[in-house]
Amino acid sequence: MISSAAPRPPRFLRACRREPVDATPIWLMRQAGRYMPEYRALRQNYSMLDAIRTPELAAEITLQPIEAFDLDAAIIFSDILPPLIGMGLPLAFVKGVGPRIERPLRTTRDIDLLATPPAETIMPGTLEAIRLVKATLEPRGIPLIGFAGAPFTLASYAIEGGGSKTYARAKTLMYTEPAAWKRLMTRLVTVIGDFLARQAEAGADVLQVFDSWAGALGRGDYERYVRPFNRMLFDRLRRVGKPVIHFSTGTSAYLDAVAASGGDVVGVDWRLPLDEAWAKIGPDRAVMGNLDPVALLGPWRELKAHTDDVLDRAAGRPGHVFNLGHGILPETPVENVRRLVDYVHERTSVKSLSEV
Amino acid sequence: MISSAAPRPPRFLRACRREPVDATPIWLMRQAGRYMPEYRALRQNYSMLDAIRTPELAAEITLQPIEAFDLDAAIIFSDILPPLIGMGLPLAFVKGVGPRIERPLRTTRDIDLLATPPAETIMPGTLEAIRLVKATLEPRGIPLIGFAGAPFTLASYAIEGGGSKTYARAKTLMYTEPAAWKRLMTRLVTVIGDFLARQAEAGADVLQVFDSWAGALGRGDYERYVRPFNRMLFDRLRRVGKPVIHFSTGTSAYLDAVAASGGDVVGVDWRLPLDEAWAKIGPDRAVMGNLDPVALLGPWRELKAHTDDVLDRAAGRPGHVFNLGHGILPETPVENVRRLVDYVHERTSVKSLSEV
Repeated sequence: MISSAAPRPPRFLRACRREPVDATPIWLMRQAGRYMPEYRALRQNYSMLDAIRTPELAAEITLQPIEAFDLDAAIIFSDILPPLIGMGLPLAFVKGVGPRIERPLRTTRDIDLLATPPAETIMPGTLEAIRLVKATLEPRGIPLIGFAGAPFTLASYAIEGGGSKTYARAKTLMYTEPAAWKRLMTRLVTVIGDFLARQAEAGADVLQVFDSWAGALGRGDYERYVRPFNRMLFDRLRRVGKPVIHFSTGTSAYLDAVAASGGDVVGVDWRLPLDEAWAKIGPDRAVMGNLDPVALLGPWRELKAHTDDVLDRAAGRPGHVFNLGHGILPETPVENVRRLVDYVHERTSVKSLSEV
Repeated sequence: MISSAAPRPPRFLRACRREPVDATPIWLMRQAGRYMPEYRALRQNYSMLDAIRTPELAAEITLQPIEAFDLDAAIIFSDILPPLIGMGLPLAFVKGVGPRIERPLRTTRDIDLLATPPAETIMPGTLEAIRLVKATLEPRGIPLIGFAGAPFTLASYAIEGGGSKTYARAKTLMYTEPAAWKRLMTRLVTVIGDFLARQAEAGADVLQVFDSWAGALGRGDYERYVRPFNRMLFDRLRRVGKPVIHFSTGTSAYLDAVAASGGDVVGVDWRLPLDEAWAKIGPDRAVMGNLDPVALLGPWRELKAHTDDVLDRAAGRPGHVFNLGHGILPETPVENVRRLVDYVHERTSVKSLSEV
């Protein structure tokens, strides 16, 4: 960990800007989550939405992995879906099933009834949790990540009502009602853009956009129905002045188009080796990834081999943030997380900062 | 449709061998399925396993789409999972959930207890259905496709017990017990190879291997834990002497490695545009694909645009079999299927065979 006396910004922020670092920074998507006994204990008494909306709880959960591991960044505890509630789409987190939208979007009229309220109105708990958590993180020199879902991923959730194998309803709306699709995506850009800007104001040092479901599309549909709206969003975020991470999964087939829609750092899943992914993304961006989360369930021999492969392919180029290719799994042994975090630091550590 | 007097083999077989055709051949994965009212009517009286195991029913279902549309190939009605039953893994098709293995593989001992019985013993109904259906198809010059699941996809099912988002159990076994993984995959190669060879003997003109879940892996794991076994399988199938289709989804990141493991025809999903996919697969193979199945739910304007994109990218090169990128969806309007099939033929039709 960088000591608070260090004259340089934390290595995570430096990596986001493709500046040399003293060791490769690492954090893990869903690092505050079910694999931690502290998290499970706290969640026994509170629902998911309560934990997200109560600033003290969200702050405590955010800090749990920071206390447990030598991580280079915290990410505010929340979920990509709650902003939809404020837009007029109530939802519930159903145990063993996942989030469910009570009345998914079915008609173009449903879309036109969606509101675009400011983040202070619909996500005040998250903004307050960011302020709380910053008071702890700031003196320790650990940056905080704020985040939101990307327009396509939120639109798909809103239309499908939950997870989907085929995204048939979302794509059918896109194909059948392109004008309504544009209105829906534009409203989402407004709400997401405002929410992320407010998170930055509240203290988030880096912003991440999760397009977790973009991989359902083919290149042509991505370029036509998604990229223009992602561009609007990333253009808006550029004015915020904080580094932005653009994460997606299953998009190996058109990672260049994903990168072209924006983001200072492009997150990649584990399907494409990191060097191949970086070549598609381009040398002018940082990259985040890309260990298979399942590697954390295997023996150290395999976890080390997979980690070494990621680090070998990053080859010490400035601009690599080590992470998983998707969220950490609930069945992950805590001890493997500790070993991974320490190993990434040890293997990439530069002895003296003056050598960087 | 090719008349039975035509001196040339049917266009589907010619396309599999990258020979010029009078029009691009088309068939659709799951073309005998729930989107057809005839199929739903028949299935009201029989379970999935009954329909698969009773030769007369499987034959009737196989022919339903052949009677309804101008398709260039039939595919025997079956499923990739039933061979697992004969290996010692009973399963049930649970309505609204999908197939479930009653006692999934949990230990290396479970793997060592798996049997490798011959196809005549475990899949006699499918072999007999092939013989029955050939009597109808042969005079009409319509080729028949036999098929089986690929080793990785069947191994994952056997370990996970059903569908999975993460394939965590399957990958963990692969990482933790590589020797047991090898024994499991080798046994699957034996059973699948024998089953496909027997389907060819019974009358199947083309064989398809479905690696529907291979896209869960990264390139490194695919190359290490899957490709060697696929190579064993495709080597075995080469001796059968019939064209082999190698289908997978979500493998855009390492389609070259998929192609390198074998198959005369490589099936691709819709994520990668067909010309980009073909470039990765190589000019010495035929390709099958790659319309997004959801395009069949949209208006004709979009269905035509997506179909034109596939055909434009195939650019009339010999060796293109038109198909979807995955199975047809149950909610697909029958009329759209008819329009698609006819449009592909019309647009690609060569006026005179002598011009080919």
